[in-house]
Amino acid sequence: MRLSRYFLPVLKEDPKEAQIVSHRLMLRAGMIKQQAAGIYSWLPLGQKVLRRIEQIVHEEQQRAGHIPVLMPTLQSADLWRESGRYDAYGAELLRITDRHERDMLYGPTNEEMITDIFRSHVNSYKDLPLTLYHIQWKFRDELRPRFGVMRGREFLMKDGYNFDLTREDALHAYNRHLVTYLRSYERMGLQAIPMRADSGPIGGDDTHEFLVLAETGESEVFYDSEITGLKFGDREIDYDSVEQCQAVLEEFTSRYARTDETHDEAVFNEIPEDRRRSARGIEVGQIFYFGTKYSEPMGATVVGPDAQRVPVHMGSHGIGVSRLAGAIIEASHDDKGIIWPEGVTPFHVGIVNLKQGDASVDSACEALYRDLTAKGFDVLYDDRDERAGAKFATMDLIGLPWRLTVGPRGLQANKIELTSRRSGESEELSPADAVAKLEKIYQPVFDAAK
Amino acid sequence: MRLSRYFLPVLKEDPKEAQIVSHRLMLRAGMIKQQAAGIYSWLPLGQKVLRRIEQIVHEEQQRAGHIPVLMPTLQSADLWRESGRYDAYGAELLRITDRHERDMLYGPTNEEMITDIFRSHVNSYKDLPLTLYHIQWKFRDELRPRFGVMRGREFLMKDGYNFDLTREDALHAYNRHLVTYLRSYERMGLQAIPMRADSGPIGGDDTHEFLVLAETGESEVFYDSEITGLKFGDREIDYDSVEQCQAVLEEFTSRYARTDETHDEAVFNEIPEDRRRSARGIEVGQIFYFGTKYSEPMGATVVGPDAQRVPVHMGSHGIGVSRLAGAIIEASHDDKGIIWPEGVTPFHVGIVNLKQGDASVDSACEALYRDLTAKGFDVLYDDRDERAGAKFATMDLIGLPWRLTVGPRGLQANKIELTSRRSGESEELSPADAVAKLEKIYQPVFDAAK
Repeated sequence: MRLSRYFLPVLKEDPKEAQIVSHRLMLRAGMIKQQAAGIYSWLPLGQKVLRRIEQIVHEEQQRAGHIPVLMPTLQSADLWRESGRYDAYGAELLRITDRHERDMLYGPTNEEMITDIFRSHVNSYKDLPLTLYHIQWKFRDELRPRFGVMRGREFLMKDGYNFDLTREDALHAYNRHLVTYLRSYERMGLQAIPMRADSGPIGGDDTHEFLVLAETGESEVFYDSEITGLKFGDREIDYDSVEQCQAVLEEFTSRYARTDETHDEAVFNEIPEDRRRSARGIEVGQIFYFGTKYSEPMGATVVGPDAQRVPVHMGSHGIGVSRLAGAIIEASHDDKGIIWPEGVTPFHVGIVNLKQGDASVDSACEALYRDLTAKGFDVLYDDRDERAGAKFATMDLIGLPWRLTVGPRGLQANKIELTSRRSGESEELSPADAVAKLEKIYQPVFDAAK
Repeated sequence: MRLSRYFLPVLKEDPKEAQIVSHRLMLRAGMIKQQAAGIYSWLPLGQKVLRRIEQIVHEEQQRAGHIPVLMPTLQSADLWRESGRYDAYGAELLRITDRHERDMLYGPTNEEMITDIFRSHVNSYKDLPLTLYHIQWKFRDELRPRFGVMRGREFLMKDGYNFDLTREDALHAYNRHLVTYLRSYERMGLQAIPMRADSGPIGGDDTHEFLVLAETGESEVFYDSEITGLKFGDREIDYDSVEQCQAVLEEFTSRYARTDETHDEAVFNEIPEDRRRSARGIEVGQIFYFGTKYSEPMGATVVGPDAQRVPVHMGSHGIGVSRLAGAIIEASHDDKGIIWPEGVTPFHVGIVNLKQGDASVDSACEALYRDLTAKGFDVLYDDRDERAGAKFATMDLIGLPWRLTVGPRGLQANKIELTSRRSGESEELSPADAVAKLEKIYQPVFDAAK
């Protein structure tokens, strides 16, 4: 993309309505625009980040055999009356009346609807296990929406639902989801720690929240410092293997890590003192096993191997897709702006032309742009007639992890500059070597998508 | 995807609620499930088709330099009061009150919001031309929703908006959109004819609807038969060229083609009698030029080259993404089921194993599945322990354009069968030759995505 043809409305001033850094930087970098309290438009740069996050979530869910569907945003109130949640859910549920005076609602979650789909179409235990998921907009009418997309009212979420014959099978689905979540967050450059949590209005006993440590987090968290050394990495896993998935659960959840809702001072104090940590965290996902809580009242049963009808065991599993855009910034920024991890950056690399209009600089930039694009990179080429300082400030603000700077002096020696946004370090390289280096840097990102 | 692990709830019986063939086939093929009047869940097969259509639309819009954003589904009523449409829009506008008693609405279209984004961030004619688009769910509270996704209440639409300094520039944007639409529909295997139309509640004088001819179409259309011979094909075009885009508009709109709303019997009768046609059509898109209808009341102005502020010239351009899934089926099916065009088929090819459990047949199928998947094909492998007849019936119903049939007898001579869903013709080939033939068949589809 040539910046001269893009729509990147960066702001010079800090917007006064933003209380936390991610909200401030998303507004300043022209990623979002507020349209109503807690409701945002995603401008081009924001839309690209959202799609990258969404794509990672899709890939990791499908890698585990989970099947995408797409449920609507509006639901019939009758479905929620069946589970008892229509009245129980409280003022955060946006209730709507249509022109025929039918009660509807804007779904904040989809347990009822997915259970309805299941009971309408599945009859036999032979069709299990089954996990369906979707990525769709949801609405929660927060009393005080704030912190930008971190606590918005209309938000994009991946919610997945497993249907299993037994409690054991459903717990395997739970563990499988834990693995997919660890992989997803790591691909986004995040460390999200599974912590024992409270189940809230979804219900159920087994639940873990995934928290990203950040000063601005809304939850207080307590953990054993050993947990921050864990990494899923690029290990291979067989998602059908109960043992392998169980082992990952044990590895990542056997050390103390809890939110304030489930924190137990006595247990915490059993950890050696130098490993006890308390901090703040941002919730970016949650997994639940809730057994037959929905299948029983809603009649989602299958005929088992013994020809008896039994309600299925279920769980639900959510990742906050739009919230993650903010959470990643909270975890990765500096005074100058955002620092995108390579896995979610809107553009892989920026090209800064130091002397727009100089024939040799222009043609070197064009050649780089063409070459990188042909190799599958998403490139932002700042081809505006602007001062170098302004171009650097924009690139720093929007946080592309790598920048190529092309100027007349360097070109005389066939050199351009490759700069890391994170370290600030620059290297002088020939254009060909710079491209080769970028290919090497991004190889793991491109490989992870396979 | 192995069918044994997929969720494909096909129905044996014709559902009684479906009045038209696409609705019936989408229900029977397990593509959708109704959740409320005019509101559908997209089951896995439907979700895949929806994503293919969406992807084609994204690619063709971006090829023309149009920039994706993502606006929310809910909007503030105040924005619509500025344009005067909050009261004017009528009962199809779903009005919502939030917990703070603020008036909201579920957007049926986004002229106001995109104009608000524009006026907040763009100040100078130097930032024009600009075209922003998004693909997002919309809601129209139809009095009598019917025909499945063809006339639903919650529907997925691409809507794009151009901002230009002059009427001439905006008409170029109009022509550019016409080109992108012709390309998009052709990639979906559709012939959609641009017809002079009525502007309705969007407003403006210049507007064309794109109609797919089909017996079940809701509009009566009148056209010169020469128009059905036109094809955009794979010609190259420079979207910046006013002349080239104008020439395409002239080529595709100079012959008589109108919906009943704008039909003029006298003009129609000037066409030679043997070329006069009347038929029914399904509307799958519409483009509008409406000048300053929104920019003026909403204050979307730029400073022009002469330092004067002027309201921008705008147009809006919509493609009915979810509706297209139905329209394509209306245009392409037979007694046995759907016949997907290669560009939008949920799976490129199906593999039918005639003797599940036979070691040599199983291993030949597995090898084909692996090989095709590695080459980028999306494959549905029917690995269930079912009769051949049932497997064929399912493949015919869900309409994959190509089927590979693998059985013990053929394999003895190293032959499998490649069958075209459209013609019903089969060919005996070695597995390697079958794969090579599929690569050749799909080359144009894969190339078009570049």
